[in-house]
Amino acid sequence: MKCSVYIATSVDGYIATPEGAVDWLHSAGNLETDMGDDLDMGFGSFIESVDCMVMGRKCMDMISSMNLSLEQWPYGDIHIAVLSNTVRTPPENLKGKVEMFSGKITDLVKTLESKGFKHAYIDGGSTITSFLNHRLIDEMIITRAPVLLGEGIPLFGKLDNQIRLVNSEAKAFANDFIQIKYRVNYL
Amino acid sequence: MKCSVYIATSVDGYIATPEGAVDWLHSAGNLETDMGDDLDMGFGSFIESVDCMVMGRKCMDMISSMNLSLEQWPYGDIHIAVLSNTVRTPPENLKGKVEMFSGKITDLVKTLESKGFKHAYIDGGSTITSFLNHRLIDEMIITRAPVLLGEGIPLFGKLDNQIRLVNSEAKAFANDFIQIKYRVNYL
Repeated sequence: MKCSVYIATSVDGYIATPEGAVDWLHSAGNLETDMGDDLDMGFGSFIESVDCMVMGRKCMDMISSMNLSLEQWPYGDIHIAVLSNTVRTPPENLKGKVEMFSGKITDLVKTLESKGFKHAYIDGGSTITSFLNHRLIDEMIITRAPVLLGEGIPLFGKLDNQIRLVNSEAKAFANDFIQIKYRVNYL
Repeated sequence: MKCSVYIATSVDGYIATPEGAVDWLHSAGNLETDMGDDLDMGFGSFIESVDCMVMGRKCMDMISSMNLSLEQWPYGDIHIAVLSNTVRTPPENLKGKVEMFSGKITDLVKTLESKGFKHAYIDGGSTITSFLNHRLIDEMIITRAPVLLGEGIPLFGKLDNQIRLVNSEAKAFANDFIQIKYRVNYL
């Protein structure tokens, strides 16, 4: 199963403020500009390419707190697995939308593969770092909002080893966001 | 005086390993590729555009430890000021090449301006963070080596305020390094 990251950070590499807020993301960049075909910065075609998603409990809580309507739900009908060894039941407003998983990441990946899933969207800083340490991430698409937060929750945590990235691509959007893309090359 | 940053980091935002090593920078990326006109990734034309440089004591020590020959010296004949409130004399191999400065950053900038300098190259993580907190950085060119270090000395330290960046540019080089450029927009 291919595992991909698609995530937004600040230029200093944070995915949220120390308190977990992401409002800076929506106010960052040039909001007046005409984005043309880049309005969703590739998120739509990325979501169409995946058939399942893995996130951590904190990521789930953040999404739950947004109280998204059916129209606002950004993940289509992809299968969503939430990693948690303590929480066994999803919040009320995510029931039927996510499935809790308790156990090892490698077992989750095997389970998803046995169900026929081919391409997973891996989300959340801790989850991405764990997947990297298990050498499971194949591709990363990181969209940097044009802002320095100065402190916050970093995308990347401590890694067991240095990891080489290849096939780099970069694009600056009209709103001053920059999207970079790499394949991961585990040695 | 215009103040610019030109610095290399890992994709997870580190300028050195926890021990201060930067050897990963020279082994990162596709070393076999033909870089064509991009061989120095813009460093030469950047250095030609500046007339002075400000770095911290740690940055000076790192350069001193490299024991560069005259031919290897990358900074041409630009004036180099080193910030330190404790060290008053440069290391033996940097004598005549750098000038120590003890005191406030704002006073250093005034001093450099009074000497007629127009464009300063600001180097080193702590120095860049201090300049940002003093709203003195105008432009940032960050070249990301295609590697995740997993831990290290971060480029950006804690900032007093969020800082907006504008006029983004991005370029992926053939060696898989990605260079991003921003102007800084203090509100």
